[in-house]
Amino acid sequence: MAFEYEELKRSNNSAARAGILHTPHGDIPTPVFMPVGTQATVKTLNNTDLYDLDARIILGNTYHLYLRPGHELIRELGGLHRFMNWKRPILTDSGGFQVFSLGPLRKIDEEGVTFKSHIDGSTHRFTPEVVMNIERDIGADIIMAFDECAPYPSVPEYTRAAMDRTHRWAARCLEEYHHSGTPDKQALFGIIQGGFYHELRHESARYLTQELDFPGYALGGLSVGEPKEIFYEMMASTAPLMPRHKPLYVMGVGSPEDLLEGILHGVDMFDCVLPTRIARNGACIVKDGRLNLRNAGNSRDERPIQEGCGCYTCQNHSRAYLRHLFRCEEILGLQLATIHNVHFLVAMMQEARVAIFEDRFEDFREQFLANFRIIPHEIREKNREARAASHKKKN
Amino acid sequence: MAFEYEELKRSNNSAARAGILHTPHGDIPTPVFMPVGTQATVKTLNNTDLYDLDARIILGNTYHLYLRPGHELIRELGGLHRFMNWKRPILTDSGGFQVFSLGPLRKIDEEGVTFKSHIDGSTHRFTPEVVMNIERDIGADIIMAFDECAPYPSVPEYTRAAMDRTHRWAARCLEEYHHSGTPDKQALFGIIQGGFYHELRHESARYLTQELDFPGYALGGLSVGEPKEIFYEMMASTAPLMPRHKPLYVMGVGSPEDLLEGILHGVDMFDCVLPTRIARNGACIVKDGRLNLRNAGNSRDERPIQEGCGCYTCQNHSRAYLRHLFRCEEILGLQLATIHNVHFLVAMMQEARVAIFEDRFEDFREQFLANFRIIPHEIREKNREARAASHKKKN
Repeated sequence: MAFEYEELKRSNNSAARAGILHTPHGDIPTPVFMPVGTQATVKTLNNTDLYDLDARIILGNTYHLYLRPGHELIRELGGLHRFMNWKRPILTDSGGFQVFSLGPLRKIDEEGVTFKSHIDGSTHRFTPEVVMNIERDIGADIIMAFDECAPYPSVPEYTRAAMDRTHRWAARCLEEYHHSGTPDKQALFGIIQGGFYHELRHESARYLTQELDFPGYALGGLSVGEPKEIFYEMMASTAPLMPRHKPLYVMGVGSPEDLLEGILHGVDMFDCVLPTRIARNGACIVKDGRLNLRNAGNSRDERPIQEGCGCYTCQNHSRAYLRHLFRCEEILGLQLATIHNVHFLVAMMQEARVAIFEDRFEDFREQFLANFRIIPHEIREKNREARAASHKKKN
Repeated sequence: MAFEYEELKRSNNSAARAGILHTPHGDIPTPVFMPVGTQATVKTLNNTDLYDLDARIILGNTYHLYLRPGHELIRELGGLHRFMNWKRPILTDSGGFQVFSLGPLRKIDEEGVTFKSHIDGSTHRFTPEVVMNIERDIGADIIMAFDECAPYPSVPEYTRAAMDRTHRWAARCLEEYHHSGTPDKQALFGIIQGGFYHELRHESARYLTQELDFPGYALGGLSVGEPKEIFYEMMASTAPLMPRHKPLYVMGVGSPEDLLEGILHGVDMFDCVLPTRIARNGACIVKDGRLNLRNAGNSRDERPIQEGCGCYTCQNHSRAYLRHLFRCEEILGLQLATIHNVHFLVAMMQEARVAIFEDRFEDFREQFLANFRIIPHEIREKNREARAASHKKKN
């Protein structure tokens, strides 16, 4: 089979690991961050930008692609790779998260979910079988099982019911995948649910890894609004139960500190709209937290977003110019900020990978976190200046 | 001086000519189309895109840059080239056209114009001297005199008054330019006015070329809503009066047929927002007219926008994908359509230049126009299919 995970190195001091995921459209060094291309485009970037950023795999969203342009059209035109002319691997989610996020617009039953399109209100129905066929038509290298994602918080009874249904749907997805799918070209990942209850998470991990056999697994239903400590606890208690010869993916996770936490527990793959979405608001990820390009403080600042950063934006443009673009609502600003943020996460993962090979990932992570604070960059700058000034005085 | 126009070849059959404009930031082969970067960015494109498109010079708008980020800020940060990190030549207009387009928001007197910002309603004043200083601070290679652009239609009396004032302002611009400007680094162009009256146009051309001495000239106040025949007549009757050893620029002209008409009469330089603006509506310039990417007819069309086109968009993406991007309002669609349209005009100018050297420009133009119609592409396709079908029947 074209799909295989190879563990190349495991840290001596944690569950962090480095590997390679072999796929029909190329190898993916892990751990990896996957930029999200919801509607067959990573917002504001073209494919060349993404290749230059060394994005090794991108995501597509099944729910959005099903609505527009439609999976049948994508199939007719040769699949998503050809449709968007993307040469590297793609992963599609199952649409589960989007459908369950529709709230009053959807109705769940044992067979599947009936929902109304957020675009035109038209009625649609997703079942595990329907989703498998849509994902087959889209043709990503990695496809996800159709699951029910319980919101945070949820009572134990509903969380168990959603998890049990996720398990029954997982079995149906797997059957449909083997029956009418393309297992030789696509790897189907099962999704662990169980909300924020350790016992349920463990039960879900056991069931999906021991009773069923997926080529890869994801932890779903995390980072949905819960406090970070609870998210981290769930990851810490569930990840060790996962089989080491298969890739592990935590869905919807994308802040630098969360990626590092995931790696520490042995997670290989991450995706999130965070870097691209905040970029479009002018917010940039930098080594000590966030920099907001809209701030007037940047008006005359000739420094790049991040000194020493190798991205196209930092190599070519000043904060002053970027601030001007955001102030004038110029599209180029959105693109340049997106490039920086995607580069930040991709490069951070590459550095983390090297650190794992060199058995110093845990130090790398601690050093990163010592600098990194999600407080406005300006406050941090002022604090630093104040400290420097007070230090000078003392001397 | 760093600025010089060299005529390399003049057509044997028309006034069409090929040359080189030497500027402090590099040579510009002419005839040339200049993409417009109103607010220090050609909308949706980054500098690398523009270099790849072989854009040899871009425009900035003095009115917009004066309001945001302000000419003083640009000067402090080393001028517009450095501010936007653009390595090639730049031309700034004088803001005259924008200010006079403000209608009730502006008041003209002999000294200058008082106007209110379209952004926040604040009051500002442009005089020839003020504008010269703003353009000096911005630091473009080519700067334009502050003129009064009469709308179409205008009565002869007002047109003459506006022209006479333009002449007095031209003399003041020239004096300020030599007095406190940087003539060694910037070339100031005079602008011929005179509305749509041949005698006034001739008088303006004579005055500005014989009484005053600018390094280059522009025909202003054309393509402002008048019928094409009238625009063409004005160009035909005025262009021959212009000095051959200096570059001639027709402002605000950018449709393919207008560029070819201008070249025929000896025009060297053109600028227009047309290719970038219509791209953002999904309209693409193609050899037989326009193609609208939003049309449902493109849904399953795997052809590029224009078969045989060498632009990044046509080399990489189908109409089906582009139509999907426009339907989903994805920014990438705007960028890809802009790339195609700018490429179309830049490449057309390069082909026209070669044709001039080979003394076949007039044929090149006629062949181009024989194919080119500004009627919706689909109607043309249908007509063609109908003709082909009827032709088949006959055989």
